[in-house]
Amino acid sequence: MAGEAEASAVEIASSAAGWGGRAWGFLERVRSRAPLVQCITNFVSMDLMANALLAAGASPAMVHSLREIEDFTPRVDALCVNIGTLSDGWLPSMQAAAAAASRAGRPWVLDPVAVSASDFRMEACLGLVALGPTVIRGNPSEIIALCRACRNRDSKGVDSSHESLDALESAKSLAFRSGSIVAVSGATDYITDGKKVIAAKNGVAMLQKITATGCTVTALIAAFVAVEPSNPLEATACALSVFGLAAELGFEMARGPASLRVHMIDSLHGLDANAVLSRAQISVVS
Amino acid sequence: MAGEAEASAVEIASSAAGWGGRAWGFLERVRSRAPLVQCITNFVSMDLMANALLAAGASPAMVHSLREIEDFTPRVDALCVNIGTLSDGWLPSMQAAAAAASRAGRPWVLDPVAVSASDFRMEACLGLVALGPTVIRGNPSEIIALCRACRNRDSKGVDSSHESLDALESAKSLAFRSGSIVAVSGATDYITDGKKVIAAKNGVAMLQKITATGCTVTALIAAFVAVEPSNPLEATACALSVFGLAAELGFEMARGPASLRVHMIDSLHGLDANAVLSRAQISVVS
Amino acid sequence: MAGEAEASAVEIASSAAGWGGRAWGFLERVRSRAPLVQCITNFVSMDLMANALLAAGASPAMVHSLREIEDFTPRVDALCVNIGTLSDGWLPSMQAAAAAASRAGRPWVLDPVAVSASDFRMEACLGLVALGPTVIRGNPSEIIALCRACRNRDSKGVDSSHESLDALESAKSLAFRSGSIVAVSGATDYITDGKKVIAAKNGVAMLQKITATGCTVTALIAAFVAVEPSNPLEATACALSVFGLAAELGFEMARGPASLRVHMIDSLHGLDANAVLSRAQISVVS
Repeated sequence: MAGEAEASAVEIASSAAGWGGRAWGFLERVRSRAPLVQCITNFVSMDLMANALLAAGASPAMVHSLREIEDFTPRVDALCVNIGTLSDGWLPSMQAAAAAASRAGRPWVLDPVAVSASDFRMEACLGLVALGPTVIRGNPSEIIALCRACRNRDSKGVDSSHESLDALESAKSLAFRSGSIVAVSGATDYITDGKKVIAAKNGVAMLQKITATGCTVTALIAAFVAVEPSNPLEATACALSVFGLAAELGFEMARGPASLRVHMIDSLHGLDANAVLSRAQISVVS
Repeated sequence: MAGEAEASAVEIASSAAGWGGRAWGFLERVRSRAPLVQCITNFVSMDLMANALLAAGASPAMVHSLREIEDFTPRVDALCVNIGTLSDGWLPSMQAAAAAASRAGRPWVLDPVAVSASDFRMEACLGLVALGPTVIRGNPSEIIALCRACRNRDSKGVDSSHESLDALESAKSLAFRSGSIVAVSGATDYITDGKKVIAAKNGVAMLQKITATGCTVTALIAAFVAVEPSNPLEATACALSVFGLAAELGFEMARGPASLRVHMIDSLHGLDANAVLSRAQISVVS
Repeated sequence: MAGEAEASAVEIASSAAGWGGRAWGFLERVRSRAPLVQCITNFVSMDLMANALLAAGASPAMVHSLREIEDFTPRVDALCVNIGTLSDGWLPSMQAAAAAASRAGRPWVLDPVAVSASDFRMEACLGLVALGPTVIRGNPSEIIALCRACRNRDSKGVDSSHESLDALESAKSLAFRSGSIVAVSGATDYITDGKKVIAAKNGVAMLQKITATGCTVTALIAAFVAVEPSNPLEATACALSVFGLAAELGFEMARGPASLRVHMIDSLHGLDANAVLSRAQISVVS
């Protein structure tokens, strides 16, 4: 499905100064390098996540046993940790893999799914944040809750009632405290390193009616950062845009959330330079 | 996808005396209230179950760790427990969540998947039944086996050779003994509180060629009971009918079981008052 | 969906001397006998595997608890063991089920997913191979790695630098050492008992862009061997061909990997004698 179209697309991408060109460049590198992305994720998302990574050109590896981390994680190109169906049994693997990835200089991303659902989940997440994820991606309520908890921990329990409830401000604060790139998903996605803020606006509302789409875009971020570890801010913005763009194209053929899921993955697999260059909506906010 | 059509549908539903109106009313309340349904279910069904709940308008939460039950379960609107891939590790979570839901006055439903596959499974199920599920839904062989085991336990091992092998009679007996609503799925679904019996006839035979459709309708029952906990008998009948109706509409577009699965979820998401009012097949048997 | 077409197909199959007739005969027996196939498999593949088995006419049972093996495994028609998401918790179940299947005279198949990803995985696999799987199916790198490790073990660590890196030679060597039928998947699948070699050429390249298709064809092999345990060599070749053929038919309707997955399962469900007889590409290599 590549061939001539891809060849000419490379030229287009090279000449394009804009974000569309950068997004296309990232996607092309994922396709050509097929980065190995280890996913320690929840049971619900495994199928969609693996299929989305394959459709994007990456190589997913759902390896989670603590017995395998030492052998396997240093060989991967990126790691995705997702706490969606967290349990005592899996948390040590997440911690060990995050530590191993950091030691090996591999980027890793954290998806703090439903972090405020329980103290167990929040404590686990704070521990993972302390291990230095390259990127943290969540929805507004997750990022706000995680930011608040980080502040409380830093300030040793002192009152934090003056903290912002705004997702972008929380994302900036969390990025500043953690040293991670923080992405907060929504109608507009915001990506920040604590100072610079990029907005990505692709996507469709119906994605919220499909389980694991948030988890899946986090894994795609891992694949994009894998091919450009020196610039996780831009890689994250481009991954969010490309995923949203695939959803937009899929939506044009969809009759509801289940067919959207199918067409979105097909579209991610078939994305060409023309679509990415003309439709990627990424901009620098500040 | 709602808007004007929905507004007029409300009027139709209000004026409709029949079961179609009641089924539509339940679905509308699920859509407007988005009940949070915790699912402790098998690995095979998680994806379809979460997507079906989302398509129906509910909010699924696949939270299963024992460490989270105390924090999380009292905040949900309903709980779905499914023993499809039961293990020693997960059973305590199921028991704790069922107990927590009961204490918090939240409805919970039990799906005794393949209950007669092993003694371990049957013992686990009997323990869960003793915790008082609001609804138990199974196929005929599961309900017959569970009813027989309950009788044997009650009668302390005394001969039970005179018991009925008829699924409906078993369902009535199990409902009587357990205090739960019991639903037995088949070409016609029967729903009973031990005395009253309701039949729901929507659905297509090809559903049996898709994994986890039984599990999924049990989760939909949880969502319906969540918005009408005072009438689990009718809520269960309406959930079964609505799910079967979505399958009928999906079947019209399907070329086989995999496309049926896609179109069924799309149809569940897009169901309108007209379809439910004109096609829901629910009746009181006794 | 059967009826007249199937009746005449039986006649065609009976008269057909070739491999197409044999493949159709296996599929017909799976459909009519609905063999119960226990799958102890990875989390990623469960959904597709169960749906493919259902589409082919078999009865999947995802039962993995060690507590249930003794009760359940002796009653199944075949067992499929897949180490894709291997962990300490699941390995004893795989070992116990493999042993129980062997004791009960039931065929079982092994899928050594990513066997070289870690020492843990390789050790686990070698232990399972020692339990005598009826069939081992993997991709070239898995079969080569497993063959090499078996040789090293047999020769107690002695240098094995002269071993072949050719997948077919490795498959033959592994089959000879293990006593198992070994199938190595690729553009052409090779199936061997160590002496005889059969080639099956159905399939499409895009299958590699769908997660768990390899796992799934291994489960289909289990279903085919279940209805012909006396000839696992031919049953394996026919299962690989039938699955590939369903993918070919699905590909004609697909727009990408996600719709291919849907159409492939639909096609597997709807496969008729004409398609199998005219398109199965199986041949004896040696």
